[in-house]
Amino acid sequence: MNDMYYEDFHVGQRFASRSQVMTRERILAFGEEFDPQPQHTSEAAAAASNFGELIASGWHTAALTMRLQYEVAFCRIVNGGMGAQVDKLAWLRPVRPGEAVQAVVEVVQMRPSESRPGYGVVSMLTTTVNQDGHSVQTMTGTLLIPRRPA
Amino acid sequence: MNDMYYEDFHVGQRFASRSQVMTRERILAFGEEFDPQPQHTSEAAAAASNFGELIASGWHTAALTMRLQYEVAFCRIVNGGMGAQVDKLAWLRPVRPGEAVQAVVEVVQMRPSESRPGYGVVSMLTTTVNQDGHSVQTMTGTLLIPRRPA
Repeated sequence: MNDMYYEDFHVGQRFASRSQVMTRERILAFGEEFDPQPQHTSEAAAAASNFGELIASGWHTAALTMRLQYEVAFCRIVNGGMGAQVDKLAWLRPVRPGEAVQAVVEVVQMRPSESRPGYGVVSMLTTTVNQDGHSVQTMTGTLLIPRRPA
Repeated sequence: MNDMYYEDFHVGQRFASRSQVMTRERILAFGEEFDPQPQHTSEAAAAASNFGELIASGWHTAALTMRLQYEVAFCRIVNGGMGAQVDKLAWLRPVRPGEAVQAVVEVVQMRPSESRPGYGVVSMLTTTVNQDGHSVQTMTGTLLIPRRPA
């Protein structure tokens, strides 16, 4: 269902994804491959770190957030959108093994593209929330989305 | 060697990591798990996408960049630093299977923290370059780094 053009979005529109558990196994595997800080690679190392316990890499949360926001919103954009960039990405709380996260995407700004006439520029704020409703990550991003042909 | 305090950094300082190949196998696995857009999940789907060929997810490049910048710079910070956030993350060129990337970290701004007296705030620009020296990603981030005890 790649059916959404720029004109199908509006400021204030929200998309809430399913939630997904971050398992100990995946947290350790991601940490080992991409972010081998002590708090991400073993319980023993994590216990001796600033964080005192095993937590997911922020980049793991960001990657999973990408998947969740893709499933609930980005996958519906005609041609998938283009020219994505992140304007801000902040980690607010740790995510521990067994915790579940959900992505809530909100359209915060829209304007026609000046450099690419067939596209609109859409800014979205994606808040990743845990099972208790606390925000664990916020990300503001920009996407080029095709305009509906006249 | 967790030996670097805030005072051991200076504006203009650079750290260049080793380079690492992004393999077809890992590109597909990452796409399947975190970014199932057609250009990341199979050659056939990618050929029919805007991109026309299989390329790594930008989040895969970002995660690998984290690892490379950790190895070359962040791992040396006393207590590992804290309170990281990303102020901007942009993808400039696609990374294809078999291409190699390297992270070049540059200190761009430093100031003592007002809210946390024992820390300094360090902004770094990390440029991820491919085997031809072209920039594929830029990221500006901020880290809280402990000050050297008096």
